[in-house]
Amino acid sequence: MTRFVEKISLFDRLSSPMAEAEDIARDGLLVHHHPRAPATTDAQAVTLGQLFKHVGDAHSGEGDDGDAAPPPHHALELDEFSAGAGGGDHLGSRPPTFVLAFTNLSYSVKRPRKMSLFRRNRLATDPVAALAPPEAFSRTKTLLNSISGEAREGEIFAVLGASGSGKSTLIDALANRIVRDSLEGSITLNGEKLDGRLLKVISAYVMQDDLLYPMLTVEETLMFSAEFRLPRSLSVSKKKSRVQALIDQLGLRAAAKTIIGDEIHRGVSGGERRRVSIGIDIIHDPIILFLDEPTSGLDSTSAFMVVKVLQRIAHSGSIVIMSVHQPSYRILCLLDRLLFLSRGQTVYSGPPEGLHRFFSDFGHPIPDNENPTEFALDLIRELEGTPAGARSLVEFNKSRQDDQPALVPATRSSLSLNDAIGASISRGKLVSGTTEGTTSASSVQKYANPFWIEMGVLTKRSFTNTKRMPELFAIRLAAVLVTGFILATIFWRLDNSPKGVEERLGFFAIAMSTMFYTCADALPIFLQERNIFMRETAYNAYRRSSYVLSHAIVGFPPLILLSVAFALTTYFAVGLAGGMQGFVFFVLIILASFWAGSGFVTFLSGVVTHVMLGYTVVVAILAYFLLFSGFFINRDRIHDYWIWFHYLSLVKYPYEAVMQNEFDDRHKCFVRGVQMFDNTPLGVLPDAIKLRVLKSMSNSLGVNITSRTCITTGTDILKQQSITQLSKWDCLWVTVAWGFLFRFLFYISLLLGSRNKRR
Amino acid sequence: MTRFVEKISLFDRLSSPMAEAEDIARDGLLVHHHPRAPATTDAQAVTLGQLFKHVGDAHSGEGDDGDAAPPPHHALELDEFSAGAGGGDHLGSRPPTFVLAFTNLSYSVKRPRKMSLFRRNRLATDPVAALAPPEAFSRTKTLLNSISGEAREGEIFAVLGASGSGKSTLIDALANRIVRDSLEGSITLNGEKLDGRLLKVISAYVMQDDLLYPMLTVEETLMFSAEFRLPRSLSVSKKKSRVQALIDQLGLRAAAKTIIGDEIHRGVSGGERRRVSIGIDIIHDPIILFLDEPTSGLDSTSAFMVVKVLQRIAHSGSIVIMSVHQPSYRILCLLDRLLFLSRGQTVYSGPPEGLHRFFSDFGHPIPDNENPTEFALDLIRELEGTPAGARSLVEFNKSRQDDQPALVPATRSSLSLNDAIGASISRGKLVSGTTEGTTSASSVQKYANPFWIEMGVLTKRSFTNTKRMPELFAIRLAAVLVTGFILATIFWRLDNSPKGVEERLGFFAIAMSTMFYTCADALPIFLQERNIFMRETAYNAYRRSSYVLSHAIVGFPPLILLSVAFALTTYFAVGLAGGMQGFVFFVLIILASFWAGSGFVTFLSGVVTHVMLGYTVVVAILAYFLLFSGFFINRDRIHDYWIWFHYLSLVKYPYEAVMQNEFDDRHKCFVRGVQMFDNTPLGVLPDAIKLRVLKSMSNSLGVNITSRTCITTGTDILKQQSITQLSKWDCLWVTVAWGFLFRFLFYISLLLGSRNKRR
Repeated sequence: MTRFVEKISLFDRLSSPMAEAEDIARDGLLVHHHPRAPATTDAQAVTLGQLFKHVGDAHSGEGDDGDAAPPPHHALELDEFSAGAGGGDHLGSRPPTFVLAFTNLSYSVKRPRKMSLFRRNRLATDPVAALAPPEAFSRTKTLLNSISGEAREGEIFAVLGASGSGKSTLIDALANRIVRDSLEGSITLNGEKLDGRLLKVISAYVMQDDLLYPMLTVEETLMFSAEFRLPRSLSVSKKKSRVQALIDQLGLRAAAKTIIGDEIHRGVSGGERRRVSIGIDIIHDPIILFLDEPTSGLDSTSAFMVVKVLQRIAHSGSIVIMSVHQPSYRILCLLDRLLFLSRGQTVYSGPPEGLHRFFSDFGHPIPDNENPTEFALDLIRELEGTPAGARSLVEFNKSRQDDQPALVPATRSSLSLNDAIGASISRGKLVSGTTEGTTSASSVQKYANPFWIEMGVLTKRSFTNTKRMPELFAIRLAAVLVTGFILATIFWRLDNSPKGVEERLGFFAIAMSTMFYTCADALPIFLQERNIFMRETAYNAYRRSSYVLSHAIVGFPPLILLSVAFALTTYFAVGLAGGMQGFVFFVLIILASFWAGSGFVTFLSGVVTHVMLGYTVVVAILAYFLLFSGFFINRDRIHDYWIWFHYLSLVKYPYEAVMQNEFDDRHKCFVRGVQMFDNTPLGVLPDAIKLRVLKSMSNSLGVNITSRTCITTGTDILKQQSITQLSKWDCLWVTVAWGFLFRFLFYISLLLGSRNKRR
Repeated sequence: MTRFVEKISLFDRLSSPMAEAEDIARDGLLVHHHPRAPATTDAQAVTLGQLFKHVGDAHSGEGDDGDAAPPPHHALELDEFSAGAGGGDHLGSRPPTFVLAFTNLSYSVKRPRKMSLFRRNRLATDPVAALAPPEAFSRTKTLLNSISGEAREGEIFAVLGASGSGKSTLIDALANRIVRDSLEGSITLNGEKLDGRLLKVISAYVMQDDLLYPMLTVEETLMFSAEFRLPRSLSVSKKKSRVQALIDQLGLRAAAKTIIGDEIHRGVSGGERRRVSIGIDIIHDPIILFLDEPTSGLDSTSAFMVVKVLQRIAHSGSIVIMSVHQPSYRILCLLDRLLFLSRGQTVYSGPPEGLHRFFSDFGHPIPDNENPTEFALDLIRELEGTPAGARSLVEFNKSRQDDQPALVPATRSSLSLNDAIGASISRGKLVSGTTEGTTSASSVQKYANPFWIEMGVLTKRSFTNTKRMPELFAIRLAAVLVTGFILATIFWRLDNSPKGVEERLGFFAIAMSTMFYTCADALPIFLQERNIFMRETAYNAYRRSSYVLSHAIVGFPPLILLSVAFALTTYFAVGLAGGMQGFVFFVLIILASFWAGSGFVTFLSGVVTHVMLGYTVVVAILAYFLLFSGFFINRDRIHDYWIWFHYLSLVKYPYEAVMQNEFDDRHKCFVRGVQMFDNTPLGVLPDAIKLRVLKSMSNSLGVNITSRTCITTGTDILKQQSITQLSKWDCLWVTVAWGFLFRFLFYISLLLGSRNKRR
């Protein structure tokens, strides 16, 4: 409770007090209204806090009405499901509880210089460019130009227009996805200025893309969403009944047990997928629902089903605000209020029924049998093609709106925002608040669950999804085994000669790079997951930290299997030293490399979001890592100005670790007696002569060197390769630490990258 | 002329003689008709040949009516452009010249086993799966089930249905894109069985994707298409006027000088792009035009414009056959004949005006104001959801068609196919034939141009497109320079010590791999080009061989610059041997590596069509090439069972070439006197002792070794590395040969891969 109040007072510096709300209502919401300067916020913060406490108290009696039965609110929804389209009269004579009004919204962006560069490609003789209004060449572009309107509870408010007309921008502006300072005009809910943090709690924003785990069923997907977004205080059985009610509300009963699917795995249809996406975001039964083109990419029947579901949601007591491109006639009948945009300006605002009258008054009556929105959009487009643009229509609309302020009065809500939210919660909205006797403030906490619960749920979800795609692991395993097999056969049973030593170095350099390159192949999967993550954290479904941790935990067990597989294929075949102990260390350092490599690729997936670019970058950086690892050029020979990169090289540490695992033995001999001449011109001489030379050397050195004397031990080789600074265990720990560091950097990149507001 | 006749008789084994055509006409085209066994073909081949000669003769007088003036046919189109929508009555009372009729088309595919594997993911409790008809689980799936219909000149014939209903399959079947043996039923043009080769000449198929060179203007794109598809005999000015007429016909006048554009470069709109795609395929003014969902992805106005253009094309004397998904009401008004499919079966066939009557007779009248196609598709979809499927509607349609054979008679063409084609050519169709006085047979040759002209045009186009995207070359150059810089600084001024030799080996191995990895980054560009190529060769726009050659020619000059850039950055900085001659060879071998590398990647782009997969495969194979190049393990140490891969390794040859360029000098010394102990335990002893050892060795060997005596020359190093088989020039030629081989393999892969027919 206190936590919430603190936050309100911290973030709500711009919110307007009750008094101003009254003024707005009196002024009428559609005519020009100049918002006042922000006043003190303390009053509201306390009021809101008190309100939630009050609601909580009122419910403490009826909160514990059994676990299995869904709350009455949901029963209502189910009734409506069978009742069919009821139009806008479901509220009866009672005025709408919520009215979201926006007045004179304007938003401009500066065109980046880049655009003018591209312009040059539009050749100089281009007549279209010559016709375009000079505004098109100026530096700032107006995306929204003084847009006003209002959306009411129980209704669907639809924004229409061609692509580029500003539809999505308006939705973003209303959903507080544009930095407030960049946006002119006011947005109020029940006459009160809308605070971003409160909006985040009582609203949901459904994006165009369906970002879902492909291998979870519809029911599982919604259940995981429930576990994330509904508070811990809600019992599991209540969450389950909420999910079941939602499945019915979304019309997904038949598909509930089907997986979502992807290009390879057959799953639910496109329309069903879209409804699941909506379901995920409305699991907490929000008061305001924003949707950016929810019907795009769907066929007419699926699109109709989606909008039908939206109507049902609106009737359950929500405001639904969506952008839509070319609604069919049947969809049009479900919409309550339309706003047509042309280049950021309003060209029509009102109910669908008003379209015929509007356009016939404008002098372009809509022909019979023609879809009014299709006609309107075509007319707007035609006008936009003329030098004057759609200005005539914009002016006509403005004059009509000014003439008919009578349209407005009915839309005033009788309740203040606080009372309305309270009433809505008591009617079953914002699910979390209704079914528990505790304070309702829990419903507006930043995160629904504590850290460890999020961890558990995320891990469970990710594990469920992964285990249904065994082929992904199989492919990685195959890649590791094939490379292991090739290395094992080409470096088969290396001997302890000078050549054998060189080849060992080569084997280690390649083997240790293999781990990293294998991880690079997992980049697309990381990128796919990243998108789901971005969507879910945008509305605080869980903490970024618990995602990063659970991601690491779920990814780890397969790495163990891969490590053992690679070690088993190569260790004994190549004939590496160290016996069982050496083998165990070999497995451990491979595992550490996988851990560091997957951390590195995970981090890159957080920074570079384009698959091809990411892959190219990973491959290039790994190549540089290998170059600086100490294999191609020893540490003592690297110039001072590059030595920092040597220490940054991820491959250095595993490489040095396996080198020590192999060679760190004073008693192991790699060059013995006459072998010392192997790589010199003396190597071709007969052994007898070599022995004579050896004897004369012995004499001059005063040491007895026979054909069995060890010239170079393993330790000598390590010295030659300048592998002297870290012990093999140090190398192991450093590699493990890299893995942790990259995951921490991934976390940072997510923190910085998920600011999904426009500037 | 003779060439064409030969081909007809070669390929036309299945074509039907005149006699049969008469029978078909008498039988009526929509009722069940069993095609007869193929008869002799000689008659037709001769007849067709004579026909074209006859047409050519008839035109020899009027053919030379000046270069600048467009043929009368185009003037007609321009008139119609301003006249607007004229409906279907443009032909006046004259019967259509062409009628394409298809009877009882059936087509089934065997479901691959894979599908049943995926099925398992649809969990066992899935009620949808339980509801689905048992047919869905059987091994063969019927995509087309006895479909009949006919499309007439001057009309748009539209195939409608939900996705998966068989729309695209039907278009493919009619366009001869399904192997004839797999397809049951008959397809006739003016009552004669349609030969695939003739169809290819008189028709065009427009695919869903817009595969265009992004940096060419609309006009250039169409002009290149004209140069490919119109015969050499047509003068350039006539080709130009054809392009200008087409630009007007497509309504692209305003966008003519604008580039096509891509994600980065701003270009024409989506609708304009689609019309350019159509334009490319109808440059030769085909008699039959097939389009697979030409309006998909376009907004309503653009879609309408596209269909308007199609109507204009139909009115110019063509048959237009398209599939369409949810036409808007305005588009519906442009369609002349509809065929609704549901799961491969006909549910309605007839004019759009018949829909109201049909569905009210069926007991589901279309409500006022509702788009009839939308209603129909929704109803079909609803029926498909029931256990019986849309069977009732299929049966109802069948009984109606049987009751009303009266629908058919008007559609008989008065002309035989040969006469009709002749008449059409004389009216200006199949552009190539009309404007030249030579024999019209040239219009039906397999390729419009000889090899060297294709080469020239392809090279010019590719060069124009490339030079407008200098950033692509800049990125490759930057990659080469950055790698060159890193290598130059890390291997700065290598000395002639044993360590220095080792580092040289490393430098060469990495440097020679860099060329290949840089080429891998160009894979996406190759893949993009490959798609354009596939589209263009599908209708014999040019020979595959000239594409492969021109691709290599255009790609070569940038490689020279890259080679010089890399050589300049590294050669002098590292301090390589050989002076100016050595440098020139260094540049040449780098250039050869780029040539071989780009050939390899080009080849892979022809085999692996998925970007990510392709990139992963390239990177993996290049890694194996490096592993087997002889650097990591010398040739004499590679086991017999892997030696073949060593010779396959692309990296081996450039690596050995630069090694020889550096070390092949008997007088160059790399290990001198006491340096021979550098990599042995003696290395740490003071020089005085080393000298003493040296002296005693001299004595025992009978050779005087002083501190200045050369122990290891360059030639010795080459011997140690087993680089003894090929001279450096041999290596260069082998590398160049690899480049040619891969381009030849690319050609083969294109030959095998571009069989774009269904089986």
